[in-house]
Amino acid sequence: MKLARLGAPGAEIPVAIAQGSTFDLRGLTADIDGAFLESGGLERVRQAFAKGSLPLLAGAETLRTGSPIARPSAIICVGLNYAAHAAESGAEPPSAPVVFLKTPNTMSGPNDDVPIPPHSTKTDWEVELGVVIGRRAYALPSAADARAHVAGFVIVNDVSERAHQLEESGGQWSKGKCSPAFSPTGPWLVTTDDIDPSALRLRSFVNGEPRQDSTTADLIFDVDHIVWHLSQYMALEPGDLVLTGTPEGVALSGRFPYLQRGDVVDLSIDGLGTQRQVFT
Amino acid sequence: MKLARLGAPGAEIPVAIAQGSTFDLRGLTADIDGAFLESGGLERVRQAFAKGSLPLLAGAETLRTGSPIARPSAIICVGLNYAAHAAESGAEPPSAPVVFLKTPNTMSGPNDDVPIPPHSTKTDWEVELGVVIGRRAYALPSAADARAHVAGFVIVNDVSERAHQLEESGGQWSKGKCSPAFSPTGPWLVTTDDIDPSALRLRSFVNGEPRQDSTTADLIFDVDHIVWHLSQYMALEPGDLVLTGTPEGVALSGRFPYLQRGDVVDLSIDGLGTQRQVFT
Repeated sequence: MKLARLGAPGAEIPVAIAQGSTFDLRGLTADIDGAFLESGGLERVRQAFAKGSLPLLAGAETLRTGSPIARPSAIICVGLNYAAHAAESGAEPPSAPVVFLKTPNTMSGPNDDVPIPPHSTKTDWEVELGVVIGRRAYALPSAADARAHVAGFVIVNDVSERAHQLEESGGQWSKGKCSPAFSPTGPWLVTTDDIDPSALRLRSFVNGEPRQDSTTADLIFDVDHIVWHLSQYMALEPGDLVLTGTPEGVALSGRFPYLQRGDVVDLSIDGLGTQRQVFT
Repeated sequence: MKLARLGAPGAEIPVAIAQGSTFDLRGLTADIDGAFLESGGLERVRQAFAKGSLPLLAGAETLRTGSPIARPSAIICVGLNYAAHAAESGAEPPSAPVVFLKTPNTMSGPNDDVPIPPHSTKTDWEVELGVVIGRRAYALPSAADARAHVAGFVIVNDVSERAHQLEESGGQWSKGKCSPAFSPTGPWLVTTDDIDPSALRLRSFVNGEPRQDSTTADLIFDVDHIVWHLSQYMALEPGDLVLTGTPEGVALSGRFPYLQRGDVVDLSIDGLGTQRQVFT
């Protein structure tokens, strides 16, 4: 199942997308958020769909695509989780997930413009597999318990300002991760029954030129390990977004220039759709 | 003006405390949160108080004290912001604020029990001056513009697990900062017109023995500088909580043992009240 949120920022309509049509979920829920996921919302959508009781949303193709989940309580990120990206960043592959946070107000729609921050010289892209938490996860006994706490998967661009992250930060990365619209998310939340996240091709392009092209099979720590590991240290809430790290091919490597105003970034992950942002 | 939230977790009643009495704010607002602060809520309370139209809350003294603000969108922290604490942590005083985040679900009441995390060996206390944002702050022109974006001040215990923060983290601190109830906050939100944060004595005690005893006059970066600086990198939202750093006297120094189950931690900051947590 694919869920999305369509419409103006702050007034998105929750929808399900199936068989080429867009179905209006407002009869079932006001939004796609933690409360919806925690209360069995996905199952209610499935039942309504099976009964044929969901109305089509007229004019869906004319609406902006928002992030497919409302603002979460937290965006939790794993860094250096592909060996080749750790190498291009000048770091060793980590022995345990390296964790940092982005402020939830960085979340934006997949095709919204991204403002380059004031005084920025090193704005960079990062295509990532995002995991949406469906059920509170704390102190899970093992990685085998993790998937039951996951609602589904999304594309996220973990936009980063490298001077702010690495040079002006005293070593703590969040300063370069939290500028407005720095977490374009979506277009879809694809539920766990509809996608296997273990070997998805993920790519990014700048002005049509390829940058990143890898597979989630290369993740050092996979989805289940990450969710289990995080749950040893913090409580993951329904609707929270977990980013699994980015593969090689970012500007930080020195192989490509940083983003300039007017640049267009395209991202894709197999089965999760595509994003396109203009940096402004 | 002093605001607080009294009652069971998730069902706190917003109140104002003045002249030894507790006034019920439910006629003015459902909660003390970003929407309340952003919409001029503090001014509405002042006007209602001046008119004498606020009812007393009966039985206030029997109620639990919650955090004085509802769960924020972000908890943004400045580290190593007292020179003597930087030294006891084995770090140089920073040349710019060092910024990390805590997940908002760490916020708890000032006297709530704090669970020591599973597998913890190094749970530590940190008394801090907390700043509550009243109005969105992004790219402020100067530190002189900062105070107008602040609603008031609170005590926070920035509870930290040092092994998780420093030894199992790959260098990113948030992994040791986000365990449930790791941000006891309150008892009061004291508004900016009622307190000058520039020279407040702040103290902590473990089982009645003194640990930290310093003054906010020793902050390397003061409140206005911090808010201005953060706003260059991220948008601070109404209701967000900014922690300004902790002074010397924590267990990380090696001078004191880490917390054990059953330990009692007391914190105080001049004019902002006191906290007491049992670690469990």
